[in-house]
Amino acid sequence: MPTPRIVRKRAEMRDLIVTNRALGRRIGFIPTMGSLHLGHTSLIDRAASECDDVVTSIFVNPIQFGPNEDYEKYPRDLHADVHLLSQHGVRWVFAPDVQEMFPPGDSTRVEVSGPAKPYEGTLRPSHFSGVATIVLRLLQSAPAHNIYFGAKDWQQILVIRQMVRDLGIDIEVVTCPTVRDQDGLAMSSRNAYLSATERKRALVIYSSLRQAEKLWCSGVAINRIEQELKKMLSAQEIQIEYADIVDAKSLLKMHKNNPNASVIILIACRVGSTRLIDNLLLPSQTLSSC
Amino acid sequence: MPTPRIVRKRAEMRDLIVTNRALGRRIGFIPTMGSLHLGHTSLIDRAASECDDVVTSIFVNPIQFGPNEDYEKYPRDLHADVHLLSQHGVRWVFAPDVQEMFPPGDSTRVEVSGPAKPYEGTLRPSHFSGVATIVLRLLQSAPAHNIYFGAKDWQQILVIRQMVRDLGIDIEVVTCPTVRDQDGLAMSSRNAYLSATERKRALVIYSSLRQAEKLWCSGVAINRIEQELKKMLSAQEIQIEYADIVDAKSLLKMHKNNPNASVIILIACRVGSTRLIDNLLLPSQTLSSC
Repeated sequence: MPTPRIVRKRAEMRDLIVTNRALGRRIGFIPTMGSLHLGHTSLIDRAASECDDVVTSIFVNPIQFGPNEDYEKYPRDLHADVHLLSQHGVRWVFAPDVQEMFPPGDSTRVEVSGPAKPYEGTLRPSHFSGVATIVLRLLQSAPAHNIYFGAKDWQQILVIRQMVRDLGIDIEVVTCPTVRDQDGLAMSSRNAYLSATERKRALVIYSSLRQAEKLWCSGVAINRIEQELKKMLSAQEIQIEYADIVDAKSLLKMHKNNPNASVIILIACRVGSTRLIDNLLLPSQTLSSC
Repeated sequence: MPTPRIVRKRAEMRDLIVTNRALGRRIGFIPTMGSLHLGHTSLIDRAASECDDVVTSIFVNPIQFGPNEDYEKYPRDLHADVHLLSQHGVRWVFAPDVQEMFPPGDSTRVEVSGPAKPYEGTLRPSHFSGVATIVLRLLQSAPAHNIYFGAKDWQQILVIRQMVRDLGIDIEVVTCPTVRDQDGLAMSSRNAYLSATERKRALVIYSSLRQAEKLWCSGVAINRIEQELKKMLSAQEIQIEYADIVDAKSLLKMHKNNPNASVIILIACRVGSTRLIDNLLLPSQTLSSC
């Protein structure tokens, strides 16, 4: 497949998309922070199957990191990323520098309340404002038909959907399944921070999610399931930030099983100094899927 | 001229603009809160002279009014507005209801700091967030080539320009001169609130601006000019909120004449209970325009 064209400027990116839309081509967009893995390529493959052209952005967005987070050490390797993208038929890689996306004197932010408030919104107070702000900017430069996100960042998807709906942005938000390593660990660029023993301990995140799903299907009460989840994580010395069973749309805590709600388990934790998140949508208890 | 088509839904409005852009037509957009006057029609006439199609929105935006402001009593007369617009060749009138622009559960806001902070930003704390949020939403529904604003709302234009630049929105912001009644009063929908005697007293706003301009051209020091301005306004029992000579781009106070700066006088005041704003760009002292 041909090497993707690397685009550095917002205006050039926009012209390419607008020109190709006018030719009747359907465009799929995958925003990333680079350090690409099979989770990203699954989004790209999905976009390629639904669209004529795929554009991927690679931009480590400074404003979605908190002051004590890993912005500086976040892994960056544009060369390897572009090589991987060339194998998946990506046409354009939008890789602006920080000044291009945040020009001097920059002073505009998007604030989403609602789904951005609990969980990550509490623990990382400026995170979702940073995410919403960059996605809105990227969409001005890459006004695609579809934008693709992975289900691992569940709350992020709710925030983006809220922003898209409220502002009336003309784009389809597509949620794709979490991609896991063979041992169950959800793909994440931050997995690179884990030592070999930390990585082994981290496997309990997914196994505890699956154990919780079993209990759920046997009709065990929600608070009992949460207790079991936390016990399993703690036994591997995982530091829990949250491990809750919530309504998948409102993110409100479920206190009773409600057969009509879509329900999800959300986990955020630290393994050593590495922060990981994961989640599992629970099957409906009324269907045979349990 | 044909009667404009009234459009109530965001998706329909967007389809009309996108379809006509694809046909190669250049679109000019004038966002308004209705209660149209010669200030608005001057923007429309300018747009009509530069574009193939003109779209005007009429939407009294609740979130740009403070809790004790005049949202409820703000003048509304869609029928008269559409009649006026039909005489100026407007093709589409976008007149959504509040629920269409702010659906239930709405929770997305745009926050601009920088030029939105002083003056109106201090006196009307949520005003510019409301303005930026609605303009961004309107632009999703009416993605025109050009958007037109009147210079009377000087700070508003700075805020919109900042947002457009920061987010990378593909639109040209066009500033048009303030339109005044023959007696000098700047056109404003809120002039309708003034009694006959208040209206007479309000004329000092413009005459004080012109007097200040004369002093400026004679080289009088800025703080002396401001004193004179305030004296003139107070003599007509005008309650001054601000009457300052500032850098027209940064809105920072000018303490010394700087021949390279673009300089503006900004006034906000109350005549009776009616709040009015006005401004005057000062001529360069180095040119013969003084």
